[in-house]
Amino acid sequence: METQKNKKEMFYPHVSVDCVLLGTNEDKLCVLLVERQVAGSDEKHYKLPGSLIYESEDLDTAAYRVLNEATGLKRVALKQFRSFGSPARTKNKEDVQWLENASKMKISRIVTVAYLALCKIGKKTTMDEKSDTLIWAPVNELPHLPFDHKEIIEAARQEIRDWVDREPGIVFDYLPPKFTAYQLRRIFEIVYDKEVDVRNFRKKMSTMEYIVQTDETETGVNHRAARYFRFDRIKYNKLHSNFNKI
Amino acid sequence: METQKNKKEMFYPHVSVDCVLLGTNEDKLCVLLVERQVAGSDEKHYKLPGSLIYESEDLDTAAYRVLNEATGLKRVALKQFRSFGSPARTKNKEDVQWLENASKMKISRIVTVAYLALCKIGKKTTMDEKSDTLIWAPVNELPHLPFDHKEIIEAARQEIRDWVDREPGIVFDYLPPKFTAYQLRRIFEIVYDKEVDVRNFRKKMSTMEYIVQTDETETGVNHRAARYFRFDRIKYNKLHSNFNKI
Repeated sequence: METQKNKKEMFYPHVSVDCVLLGTNEDKLCVLLVERQVAGSDEKHYKLPGSLIYESEDLDTAAYRVLNEATGLKRVALKQFRSFGSPARTKNKEDVQWLENASKMKISRIVTVAYLALCKIGKKTTMDEKSDTLIWAPVNELPHLPFDHKEIIEAARQEIRDWVDREPGIVFDYLPPKFTAYQLRRIFEIVYDKEVDVRNFRKKMSTMEYIVQTDETETGVNHRAARYFRFDRIKYNKLHSNFNKI
Repeated sequence: METQKNKKEMFYPHVSVDCVLLGTNEDKLCVLLVERQVAGSDEKHYKLPGSLIYESEDLDTAAYRVLNEATGLKRVALKQFRSFGSPARTKNKEDVQWLENASKMKISRIVTVAYLALCKIGKKTTMDEKSDTLIWAPVNELPHLPFDHKEIIEAARQEIRDWVDREPGIVFDYLPPKFTAYQLRRIFEIVYDKEVDVRNFRKKMSTMEYIVQTDETETGVNHRAARYFRFDRIKYNKLHSNFNKI
């Protein structure tokens, strides 16, 4: 920390945390948003769950507080993934006005530490009394959001792509133990946000020795019953082995 | 960002960036430290290169400014890897006193955004005029450092292990095109900070199809000339293929 060049450079940024919870809902990648009250507006306004940090709080503590206050969840594994601190974050005067009203503080600049969790969307995601102030919004059809929340969501999506690039095995945590080729393909289409050619995907699957065909097929479906596959983690770990375990 | 609970919770944290440059020197993992002036002390004191951010600066801009001011380097690829914001960061009064003297600002709490780069240590790492205020300190033999700089360095080392765990191929960027089994083993020993059994390592190497034995051996050495290996990136990418490239 060098000497500040001159008095003009002195300023007092605020620090916040924002939580990006991503999950798939109705075959779309969705993000959890909370309602925010905007004075003089009847429309619904949303934002990422977030908060300025409190004086006694570590960053992780603040992130879990925010998550818990917004959703009632405690056990979601939040991972700090990036901090956003551009001076342009507060360029929209309405956003700053809203935050100053809500926080009763003068706001010039805010550096936010963003956290990320991948969730399965289910009944137990939200506390009952909170649920009508929360929405799961498709990432590709976001409403207006304050500050750089859209940019943070896009960065979170990219972060998840990077995780899956490096470790494709994590997608199997979000599939049932037995899954169809369609289910697997859809999860990759959702992660990479693009359509994947069915035939190419099957070809790729057949080269992945850790995706094992079972003898079972779907039952009780109207269409032609699809074959079930399973994930062989032992084979996967062997193929993705590294020098750590010597 | 919820309403702050009460006035007591209002506070003004500072935001800084810190740069962790790691490289290997004389077969040890080292970190770049800069000298800091401590009033009334004749001993040399060091810290990570870092700075409070300026009012007009993005976080990345601040990190590159710090790196450039400290070392003259511009082309190192810095990666933001984690923010540290525990209230305990400023528990040591001497550290706070030093920073208040250096910055001419009242300091209560500092959230720092840490950046990381892996470097090859070479002649061009530092500007000539700066080089006597800089040291490459072995990570296992660090001098006293202010704030949580030791913790940040340990987290940076862990981050690099995670990179290598997920993508062992990156170590070959830090080896010559032809390398010996010893050189490869040493780089893993340095990354994982443990001795690796020679025989087990050779066994592991032989299972890694992307490490290809060449016909060449070392020349002009006193000991028995070792075989050279090379890294086959095409084979590596195939083995570590994922669904991104469909």
